[in-house]
Amino acid sequence: MKIILVGASGTIGKAVDAELSARHEIVRVGRSSGDVRVDMADPASVARLYAQTGPFDALVSTAGNVHFGPLEQFTPELFEVGLRDKLMGQVNLVMQGLEHIRDGGSFTLTSGLLNEDPIRQGLSAAMANGGLEGFVRGAAIELPRGLRINIVSPTVLEESLPAYGPFFRGTKAVPASEVALGYAKSVEGAQTGRVYRIGWSRDA
Amino acid sequence: MKIILVGASGTIGKAVDAELSARHEIVRVGRSSGDVRVDMADPASVARLYAQTGPFDALVSTAGNVHFGPLEQFTPELFEVGLRDKLMGQVNLVMQGLEHIRDGGSFTLTSGLLNEDPIRQGLSAAMANGGLEGFVRGAAIELPRGLRINIVSPTVLEESLPAYGPFFRGTKAVPASEVALGYAKSVEGAQTGRVYRIGWSRDA
Repeated sequence: MKIILVGASGTIGKAVDAELSARHEIVRVGRSSGDVRVDMADPASVARLYAQTGPFDALVSTAGNVHFGPLEQFTPELFEVGLRDKLMGQVNLVMQGLEHIRDGGSFTLTSGLLNEDPIRQGLSAAMANGGLEGFVRGAAIELPRGLRINIVSPTVLEESLPAYGPFFRGTKAVPASEVALGYAKSVEGAQTGRVYRIGWSRDA
Repeated sequence: MKIILVGASGTIGKAVDAELSARHEIVRVGRSSGDVRVDMADPASVARLYAQTGPFDALVSTAGNVHFGPLEQFTPELFEVGLRDKLMGQVNLVMQGLEHIRDGGSFTLTSGLLNEDPIRQGLSAAMANGGLEGFVRGAAIELPRGLRINIVSPTVLEESLPAYGPFFRGTKAVPASEVALGYAKSVEGAQTGRVYRIGWSRDA
C-alpha cells in the first residue's frame, strides 16, 4: 500500500513509520519536515499536499496541536487552536482525501484519552478528541467505495513522561511502539468506525 | 434557584421549563423569543445576556444548531455552523457564565446520541456532540467554588418523529418530558462531569 503519514516526525509518527514501512510505501508528511509539507489547518495547504502525493491507499494522521492551560484562562481564541488544528485539520485531511484515495482505502486519525479520562489543563484536548471521535463514527457509515475510517486514542506515551508526567500521575503509560499497533490494525484490518483505545479502557 | 434556560421555546426547552418551573425561578432565553435574547455563537451577545440576567444558580442550555447533510456535500463552512453554534455557543455560555454564577451552581448542556450512534447526514452533529461531552468532562474537574457541569444526551424525541423519523428508523424515541428528567437530575442533584443518556445506552 501507499500510505500518507501526516505527523511522521513526531513520537507516534516515527513508531507508526517503523511499524508499517517494512510492508508498505510511506509518504512522510509534516508541518516543517518530511517528503511533503502541510499546514493541515489550512484547506489550501491540504489541497497542495494531495496534488503532490497523488492517489494513495491509506492516510494516517498522528498530528494535531491544541492549547493546554487552566480552564479559567481559556478564551474563545485559545479554544480555536485545537478546533482549527487537531480537529478540523484532521477533518480536512479526510474530506479532501476522499477525492484522491483509492477504492477500499482507509483513513486513521488520532485522538487521545482526555475526553473520557480528563486531566487538569486538558479542556481543549478533551473537546478536540471528542469531536474527532464523533466525526469518525459519523463518517464511517457514509463513506463510499468501501472506504474505511478509524481513530486511535492512546494513553500517555512513555516517551512523553519526562515532559508531561506531572499531568498524568496515576495514568498507565505505554511505549509509542505499542500505540503504533492501533494504526496497523486500522490500516491493515477491515474494521471501520472504531476508536482503538491503546493502554486504557473507558470501563476502567 | 434562579435558572437561566437557553432554548426555552424549543421542544426540550419547554419540557425542562415544565419540569423545573414549579420549584424554581426560570429566566427564559432564546434566539428570537423569551425574556432575554441571545446569539450564543457571538461572545458579545453572551456578555449582554449575563449583563441582563445578573447572578444565577443554574444555566441550562437546550439550544444549538448544526448543519445536516450528506458527508460528500460537507465543506469547511458547513462544519463551522455546528462548531460555532452548538459547540462553541454552549461553551461560550459556560465560560462567560463563570463570572456570574453563584457558588455551588451548575451548568447543564445538551448533546445527543449521534456521536455514539450515528445516522446518515449526522456527521456535524456527531462532531459537535463529541466535542461538548469532552469539554464537559474536562471542565468538571477544574471548576472552582463547588460549581458543577453535566450534559444531557437524548435519543430522538417522540415529538420530532414527524419531521425526522425517516433518519431514525429503529431508534427508540422518548417524549421530551422524559428527557427533561436529565436536566432536573443535573440541576437539583450533586453529580458533576456526567453524560446523562436519556432513552438510549452506549452499551446497546
